Amino acid sequence: MADRNRLSINQATTRQQHTLAEAIAAYSTQDVPGIGIWRDKLEECGLAEAKRRLDDSGLKVSSLCRGGMFPHPTAGKRQAALDDCRIAIEQAAELDADCLILVAGGLPAGSKDLIGARQMIREGLAAVLPNARAAGVPVAIEPLHPMYAADRCAINTLDQALDLCDALGEGVGVAVDAYHVWWDPKLEAAIARAAGRILGFHVCDWLVPTTDLLLDRGMMGDGVIDLPALHRAVSAAGYVGPIEVEIFSTANWWRRPGDEVIATCKERFQACV
Amino acid sequence: MADRNRLSINQATTRQQHTLAEAIAAYSTQDVPGIGIWRDKLEECGLAEAKRRLDDSGLKVSSLCRGGMFPHPTAGKRQAALDDCRIAIEQAAELDADCLILVAGGLPAGSKDLIGARQMIREGLAAVLPNARAAGVPVAIEPLHPMYAADRCAINTLDQALDLCDALGEGVGVAVDAYHVWWDPKLEAAIARAAGRILGFHVCDWLVPTTDLLLDRGMMGDGVIDLPALHRAVSAAGYVGPIEVEIFSTANWWRRPGDEVIATCKERFQACV
Repeated sequence: MADRNRLSINQATTRQQHTLAEAIAAYSTQDVPGIGIWRDKLEECGLAEAKRRLDDSGLKVSSLCRGGMFPHPTAGKRQAALDDCRIAIEQAAELDADCLILVAGGLPAGSKDLIGARQMIREGLAAVLPNARAAGVPVAIEPLHPMYAADRCAINTLDQALDLCDALGEGVGVAVDAYHVWWDPKLEAAIARAAGRILGFHVCDWLVPTTDLLLDRGMMGDGVIDLPALHRAVSAAGYVGPIEVEIFSTANWWRRPGDEVIATCKERFQACV
Repeated sequence: MADRNRLSINQATTRQQHTLAEAIAAYSTQDVPGIGIWRDKLEECGLAEAKRRLDDSGLKVSSLCRGGMFPHPTAGKRQAALDDCRIAIEQAAELDADCLILVAGGLPAGSKDLIGARQMIREGLAAVLPNARAAGVPVAIEPLHPMYAADRCAINTLDQALDLCDALGEGVGVAVDAYHVWWDPKLEAAIARAAGRILGFHVCDWLVPTTDLLLDRGMMGDGVIDLPALHRAVSAAGYVGPIEVEIFSTANWWRRPGDEVIATCKERFQACV
């Protein structure tokens, strides 16, 4: 049974229902202690206004989503991605977020060169890490499910993310998202290897069948992921931080009243994680 | 440029257009040298009739799809899967197929225990391998993309399949399907490791965006997989057998005239593989 003091809800879970201001109000009203924030929602609200509302509510920011998307065909676009990531680092520092979620990016437009894309990711991370270190913002590489390798993220296993961490040194770790890693035959060893470098733990569930590659994630308990086993593994690796619920669900949870979604997250968090 | 003498078309590519008898006629009319056969189509045609038509056409059978689906909650259902796989082995022997494709199966109904499912797969394979060896039918474990881990196949990387081969000994190898393995950061090393054990090489393409997890595969050249690089890697590992085109495509290729699909497969095989 997960400790409710560690619950955070990523605002993507109610992104169709709530602005950031509304999410802050709705989560804190139901005594959810943490929130994961998306930058589009943050920028719509304004950073100063968001900070004021977060301070008033007492909500802790478990993560800011996201920096990254490094691979591009031109140097100009790669530079723009670095500039954008540096802004994300500043925003994460201002919000006192536990980490900046790094979604690395997939193939550059028009390319089939996955190895080249991965090299661009490594170079991009190396370029922004000094800024992250200076700002005191831990960067959490989030390996994404292999079905996103082409268009979102060419870092697709925890081991691959840890190899990057090994190469890059201080200030970078990993976010372990159940949805992305649950299938990995080397998962248990990879989580043990990640000890001391786990910056976030995200939960939802894998539905059978899954009807959309991106927007059909399930509520904890409605799918097939053994979340308690994953929770134990992450805990055994020393992670004691927030556990973030992040559900993209056009056909179900995004259509329900926000308060019902939050209440269900709280209930399932304790029952199924 | 792929050698057209190595082309095989898996009949799933025109499964909405053709019975097995029709596929044999249509492929051989266009001088396609090989065919991959599915058991539902085979049983509809009848084994003796299929053999007669294959002999008349000169088409070689590159694979029979499929045996496997080993994990089940009850011993009775697991035994039924073994019995069925032994029938598949006999059919593959009768057809002189180059291999029997083994799709391992996912989680048993109601289970979240992926490690247990993988153990059932190993036990199932160990149980049927003596039959396959006796029949002279090579068994090709086909790792499926991680997005199928829950419902189709809990063997999700080439390395994982090769670990199974190492454990099981003679008579078993792997099928390398571009669609399933292209994303793997350890792919190049895994293909080299597979040298001497590659029993099949399947091609199609990964579309961006992909609109369905199962039935939205692309024609070679329409997606993002670097097929020539994969072809070189498989060749460097010593594979000289048939290269099978296998495309499941409800929205596109399954709606076109069969002859057009075959002609396109031939053209793209030479231009894009």
